[in-house]
Amino acid sequence: MPSAARKTQERERASMEPPPADDYAKERYGMSPMIQSQEKPDRILVRIKDLTVERADEVAWVRGRIHTSRAKGKQCFLVLRQQQFNVQALVAVGDHASKQMVKFAANINKESIVDVEGVVRKVHQKIGGCTQQDVELHVQRIYVISLAEPRLPLQLDDAVRAEVEGEEEGRATVNQDTRLDNRVIDLRTSTSQAVFRLQSGICQLFRETLIHKGFVEIQTPKIISAASEGGANVFTVSYFKSSAYLAQSPQLYKQMCICADFEKVFCIGPVFRAEDSNTHRHLTEFVGLDIEMTFNYHYHEVVDEIADTLVQIFKGLQERFQNEILTVNKQFPCEPFKFLEPTLRLEYREALAMLREAGVEMGDEDDLSTPNEKLLGRLVKEKYDTDFYILDKYPLAVRPFYTMPDPGNPKISNSYDMFMRGEEILSGAQRIHDPQLLTERAQHHGIDLEKIKAYIDSFRFGAPPHAGGGIGLERVTMLYLGLNNVRQTSMFPRDPKRLTP
Amino acid sequence: MPSAARKTQERERASMEPPPADDYAKERYGMSPMIQSQEKPDRILVRIKDLTVERADEVAWVRGRIHTSRAKGKQCFLVLRQQQFNVQALVAVGDHASKQMVKFAANINKESIVDVEGVVRKVHQKIGGCTQQDVELHVQRIYVISLAEPRLPLQLDDAVRAEVEGEEEGRATVNQDTRLDNRVIDLRTSTSQAVFRLQSGICQLFRETLIHKGFVEIQTPKIISAASEGGANVFTVSYFKSSAYLAQSPQLYKQMCICADFEKVFCIGPVFRAEDSNTHRHLTEFVGLDIEMTFNYHYHEVVDEIADTLVQIFKGLQERFQNEILTVNKQFPCEPFKFLEPTLRLEYREALAMLREAGVEMGDEDDLSTPNEKLLGRLVKEKYDTDFYILDKYPLAVRPFYTMPDPGNPKISNSYDMFMRGEEILSGAQRIHDPQLLTERAQHHGIDLEKIKAYIDSFRFGAPPHAGGGIGLERVTMLYLGLNNVRQTSMFPRDPKRLTP
Repeated sequence: MPSAARKTQERERASMEPPPADDYAKERYGMSPMIQSQEKPDRILVRIKDLTVERADEVAWVRGRIHTSRAKGKQCFLVLRQQQFNVQALVAVGDHASKQMVKFAANINKESIVDVEGVVRKVHQKIGGCTQQDVELHVQRIYVISLAEPRLPLQLDDAVRAEVEGEEEGRATVNQDTRLDNRVIDLRTSTSQAVFRLQSGICQLFRETLIHKGFVEIQTPKIISAASEGGANVFTVSYFKSSAYLAQSPQLYKQMCICADFEKVFCIGPVFRAEDSNTHRHLTEFVGLDIEMTFNYHYHEVVDEIADTLVQIFKGLQERFQNEILTVNKQFPCEPFKFLEPTLRLEYREALAMLREAGVEMGDEDDLSTPNEKLLGRLVKEKYDTDFYILDKYPLAVRPFYTMPDPGNPKISNSYDMFMRGEEILSGAQRIHDPQLLTERAQHHGIDLEKIKAYIDSFRFGAPPHAGGGIGLERVTMLYLGLNNVRQTSMFPRDPKRLTP
Repeated sequence: MPSAARKTQERERASMEPPPADDYAKERYGMSPMIQSQEKPDRILVRIKDLTVERADEVAWVRGRIHTSRAKGKQCFLVLRQQQFNVQALVAVGDHASKQMVKFAANINKESIVDVEGVVRKVHQKIGGCTQQDVELHVQRIYVISLAEPRLPLQLDDAVRAEVEGEEEGRATVNQDTRLDNRVIDLRTSTSQAVFRLQSGICQLFRETLIHKGFVEIQTPKIISAASEGGANVFTVSYFKSSAYLAQSPQLYKQMCICADFEKVFCIGPVFRAEDSNTHRHLTEFVGLDIEMTFNYHYHEVVDEIADTLVQIFKGLQERFQNEILTVNKQFPCEPFKFLEPTLRLEYREALAMLREAGVEMGDEDDLSTPNEKLLGRLVKEKYDTDFYILDKYPLAVRPFYTMPDPGNPKISNSYDMFMRGEEILSGAQRIHDPQLLTERAQHHGIDLEKIKAYIDSFRFGAPPHAGGGIGLERVTMLYLGLNNVRQTSMFPRDPKRLTP
């Protein structure tokens, strides 16, 4: 440790001196020895969220962080926090606490973790800033379990302040780089806790729904020998005496599992894109929720399954994560997410007509630009009152070589994107399962056949028709909650300029 | 496509010529056009596993692979396969089938996918080689949906043959490299289908159990800026104009989530080890099931939670995956997996005593070699009748720098491994949550403090005591099923010599 840092730390510890010998409360406070699993006491720690009037007049032990601390004459008010819950604790000079003990409590740095023993007391006026509004804790003992350094790189109260409130009232907010640089603290806010609990819920609902539908979870390799999709935007890895690549998607492996008779597969895993894009919605590493399945006669069988999976996620979030949604909304106000059942499916040509009517000039085979995607999202919302829809039958020219062409029109394809609040969250298609057509399409795209030989060979021993798609977890989280940057929904985001923490 | 391959394909297709015009059954068989989602017929395809006597005399459409085919005079017996299920189908000259149609059916290459319409008929003698023993399908129509090439790189029947049967009866088995080189076909066997369905079940049970216990799923980055565990055995990635590393474990990120108040977290994701080990149990990329959680006073609180999670997985597999276990056992016979409740926990010194009694010479601070681990597994099995146990309190010297030392004995540590059938499947410990002690231990290990500054800084703003561990998914699958190579339980294994498919 640099000696400056060590000195700082010594100073901090010095301020937490052991109780003087003549203090009548000296056994009741102090620095706890570092918990090294010395003993297994039978003490029960009560969760802060369980401190309610039902426990009035009981003695409870609680472990929490010092969220705020305010000394006032012979007493000190602490707010103890545990995840998104907090409670007021009062240390007051009296039978249990000496003047020195109150001073000790008042001097504990914010964010330190303490064990507190106290009597739960019903209060007559609700406590405004706390989740436990009807009780407070009258502290009888307080020990520091882990001492925080005195200067926090950001204040939690600033980090949860709505931007509009910050602007109107001239109060501090925290900018994104400061948050990300100090992510351990930023993730402690009620907003972050809610965002990532909800994200965990998205994964859970995705899997629950698919396992219920008979899907099998697969694990696909991330280190691959050849860049299957042409070689652009791929990260290179040194692999012993040779080199390899990081998979840009589990595409090939999902399809191999289909050719291997697993029929319906999904996977959740990292996806890597060496794309030098510094936008609100691009990351170089993100989490893909991937689906691939066989169908009988028409790829809409798959589209319907994927759309229903997303609908089940949206419903599950509404049912199980209402508190989290409300918590995030407090800081980032947003309209509730709307969707239809069954999901709206528009064809690309219909979308083009809507955009042209709104004054956009686009050719039949042009791809949608980001601004046009957003405009289309607004037009669809106005007309159909939904934040979620499917855009089907993209021009063949703007899709990857393995996309199945439409059977009737060689300029369009059996492919689709899905959108939330006007932004793409899933891209998918019927894949070509015939090795001869696949070869022709790869040649048409100028792809070196040698490099994709293993891919094409996978289809030579009987391949069922199949389709699938990949969903970006961070985008779904961001757009469901109406946030505006994908870095808010990635715990430790990676972009061309950020590799830490 | 190389012209030789194209010629082969043309020959194959030529053998599947269109029916002659004078054939009275000509509408009832042939090559189906490639399914390009031309239409949405209302035809229902019956699953092969649902072909039972309850459906006797009904007409059913079935899609399956040609598993075997045997022509005999005016009839042809096909076995149609769908995942692990199969049924006999009979094409016989008569009202519905012409001589040409029977010949067509007999000529379809094995592993091709066909749509068959037939009448379900009860049989009077059970059909030996099929899962559907009480019925057969009398074919009225047959169309090839996807034609397999005629020469398969391996035969499915060979690939499921027990080694002992192969040796004793001189019948073919398939070696591992051939399997892995042609994984798409190898994964179609009943054994592979069972292995990977069970593996999907392990992930599902792991998550179900932990979510029930109040854990949150997190997503940790795989591309990292510094090799946190010292820099050995790490893969380097080119990252735009700079370079980065692939994470050897989610260790740091799990711990940051603990410092960020998530309290109980888990993740499932790829883990990368650039270790040049060519053994039966090492992979360069494997799937880690990782857990980290805070505890109140003793790390055994965490050990108990992890052990219980594994026990819930073992129980769930027994309850829900009995068929899969039996299927794998047919090819790879093995004793059922035994475990105790609560899980047996031995201290390292007790293990040493057992090994010494068995004649092994080892110092108190020596690590266990692989042969000694296996020997210990046998000794424990004999004495306690369990295939699963915890080894607690490893010597401090053999564990990573961030391991919490034992409070009473500076030579041992609050760390543990867990074993299945005598092989390590989990390594874990109480982590040091005090930045000062962490700094001292890193210095003791000669680690450059600058490189782990971000790691140590994570603990400066209040850190709760915590412990955790990482489980290797492929190892758990292998050892639960009593297999002997981790490549059998990785769909697309990666080792120093294998990067494909």
